[in-house]
Amino acid sequence: MTKNRLEAFSDGVIAILITIMVLELRAPAGSDLAALVSALPELAMYLLSFVFLGIYWNNHHHLLHATTAVSGAVLWANLHLLFWLSLVPFATRWMGESGLAPLPTATYGGVLLLSAIAYTILVRAILACQPPDSVLAVAIGDDFKGRLSLGLYAAAVPLTFLNPWITVAIYTVVALIWLVPDRRIEARLGAAAPPHRARGN
Amino acid sequence: MTKNRLEAFSDGVIAILITIMVLELRAPAGSDLAALVSALPELAMYLLSFVFLGIYWNNHHHLLHATTAVSGAVLWANLHLLFWLSLVPFATRWMGESGLAPLPTATYGGVLLLSAIAYTILVRAILACQPPDSVLAVAIGDDFKGRLSLGLYAAAVPLTFLNPWITVAIYTVVALIWLVPDRRIEARLGAAAPPHRARGN
Amino acid sequence: MTKNRLEAFSDGVIAILITIMVLELRAPAGSDLAALVSALPELAMYLLSFVFLGIYWNNHHHLLHATTAVSGAVLWANLHLLFWLSLVPFATRWMGESGLAPLPTATYGGVLLLSAIAYTILVRAILACQPPDSVLAVAIGDDFKGRLSLGLYAAAVPLTFLNPWITVAIYTVVALIWLVPDRRIEARLGAAAPPHRARGN
Amino acid sequence: MTKNRLEAFSDGVIAILITIMVLELRAPAGSDLAALVSALPELAMYLLSFVFLGIYWNNHHHLLHATTAVSGAVLWANLHLLFWLSLVPFATRWMGESGLAPLPTATYGGVLLLSAIAYTILVRAILACQPPDSVLAVAIGDDFKGRLSLGLYAAAVPLTFLNPWITVAIYTVVALIWLVPDRRIEARLGAAAPPHRARGN
Repeated sequence: MTKNRLEAFSDGVIAILITIMVLELRAPAGSDLAALVSALPELAMYLLSFVFLGIYWNNHHHLLHATTAVSGAVLWANLHLLFWLSLVPFATRWMGESGLAPLPTATYGGVLLLSAIAYTILVRAILACQPPDSVLAVAIGDDFKGRLSLGLYAAAVPLTFLNPWITVAIYTVVALIWLVPDRRIEARLGAAAPPHRARGN
Repeated sequence: MTKNRLEAFSDGVIAILITIMVLELRAPAGSDLAALVSALPELAMYLLSFVFLGIYWNNHHHLLHATTAVSGAVLWANLHLLFWLSLVPFATRWMGESGLAPLPTATYGGVLLLSAIAYTILVRAILACQPPDSVLAVAIGDDFKGRLSLGLYAAAVPLTFLNPWITVAIYTVVALIWLVPDRRIEARLGAAAPPHRARGN
Repeated sequence: MTKNRLEAFSDGVIAILITIMVLELRAPAGSDLAALVSALPELAMYLLSFVFLGIYWNNHHHLLHATTAVSGAVLWANLHLLFWLSLVPFATRWMGESGLAPLPTATYGGVLLLSAIAYTILVRAILACQPPDSVLAVAIGDDFKGRLSLGLYAAAVPLTFLNPWITVAIYTVVALIWLVPDRRIEARLGAAAPPHRARGN
Repeated sequence: MTKNRLEAFSDGVIAILITIMVLELRAPAGSDLAALVSALPELAMYLLSFVFLGIYWNNHHHLLHATTAVSGAVLWANLHLLFWLSLVPFATRWMGESGLAPLPTATYGGVLLLSAIAYTILVRAILACQPPDSVLAVAIGDDFKGRLSLGLYAAAVPLTFLNPWITVAIYTVVALIWLVPDRRIEARLGAAAPPHRARGN
């Protein structure tokens, strides 16, 4: 019950975040090719943020799927994650409007870094209320991808002041790392039972 | 479980897309009949996009209704579809503001074409994790309407540069083709069991 | 299953409509009492539209609660209703910005009238796929409140050109008529079984 | 059934409210540190409102979790609460734009006060349709935190005209009081059964 409502609320917030960014895409200033081309960088930033939020939705989905118990701390850890994700449209807009100026690009990276930290906290809060040898604990393991992302984000923020394009390249690499859904959990669950088979429908 | 959350998330995104377009409808500039008349083309474009998103919601609903298993690839194919659908408000706004100029109208068609391709990919991804003789596979069959739509969209995009009204006429024809819900699936399911009877409520 | 998703999608759209109107409330131009007072008419229009959408959500909820089967025609009748409801924020904004000018106020009434007609169509489409002596058919009965509302709306639209305040008074009367939830259905269901008792939670 | 849809609709509205506030965060005017610093007060107001809406979602969740029956009066009491919550983004924007001027800050407090009153009414409406010795009634008890918050809000509104910062300090104190989720209900339920264990998933 609580888990279902937590999922539904998180889905709602992420669905809105992923969608309202498109509200901020301004229609190109003219109706010729030059106008469309000049809108492309903003569209590319939208694509990047869409992919990041899609990754969070996907991993959040896998994470909750393997969760059997939810505590009050988990509710707040989840709201904390949603807070940082909610700043993604704001940071995307600022970065886009500034044309990849260093500080806005670093701020974007900071929002991604804090989202990743909040996700890590959420994972710990969930693990704390599972049995110690749970499917989830085994599936997460040493969380190599999670720690790698945190390191890459932390490196990307200062590198922005050298060259913002290095930072965007690092963000793209992190996105590619995660575009593969969290097969660790999927694989572990698969060993126990067919996880994605819809039951009773 | 996974299927339910996939449906809920897709419903959320489509509900938001279908609704935020109305946020972009500017109130007519005056309060007389001329002002209302001058707002009509934009209202007509809103109606067209509302119908397209409604068609996708309806077909998505029928598709998932007949689905029994969901894989990681399906999750991503679904996000891919939602990405192209999320550009519908942007393309609608640009087309409306430009007064049906060729490039914006062709871009609108391009977004519809890529949405249709993404839907086709989603259907294939879902079929790949069903048993080969599933109800869904039989119901989809040779997917005549799907292939016809793809062909019409692909033709409509270049024809825009001849005359944008041809293109709008083609979009309207495609909408009419699909306004009839996907009776193939409905009919097949109906043969097995009353599909739309709400269970246990 | 289908019924649940229909409810969820409708809830999503109505929740968004009821909420995005507040996005259009402009912050008062100053920070003194005069600025707040000058924002009051717009706040009153927001309250009226919030109440109307709340009434639709409430009645939609009672209607679907008593529904046991859903057809393809119901899906489209529901989308048709959502289309007219989606124009409520647009009409509210135009009416508010114009300071209750006749045409915008009549347009607002037209949107409410078409929403009420769409709701009537939805009720008919649902009744068409229930058994003839269903709880719902008995509960709806001769639909006195529904017909009364249609009549009042139809009268309100032309009366706007006499005096917009007459129209606003009529809208308020209709809202008050419906603020009482649809006790017909509730009462009938209550006779058969305790309808609002959450089951299995 | 009714309870589930009530939760889903409330979640939808709160999720949208919590998210659309970020739409109103304007990107800083420049791309240097001074521009970011000048955007910080607005970000802090966003954080405060995010926390308040998060608190309402959390408490609403605990409240409904312990509810077993829902009446028509509860549906309207819930819509009444959502109405006041829906004005939070409007009041946040006005307060932020005015730079904490007295009247906007008092208005913000008034919206919070009326939301708290509406929540109290909702609790009473729910208690009225539970059995008299229900888990919920015992868990709510004398509602010390609720009455304390009402008193603090009522004091904060007039104090704004002395100094708006006193008011912001009081709002922060109320937020901290509630950041701890409603352990009364959680503890009582926990005595009867493990409340947060997801069932059947």
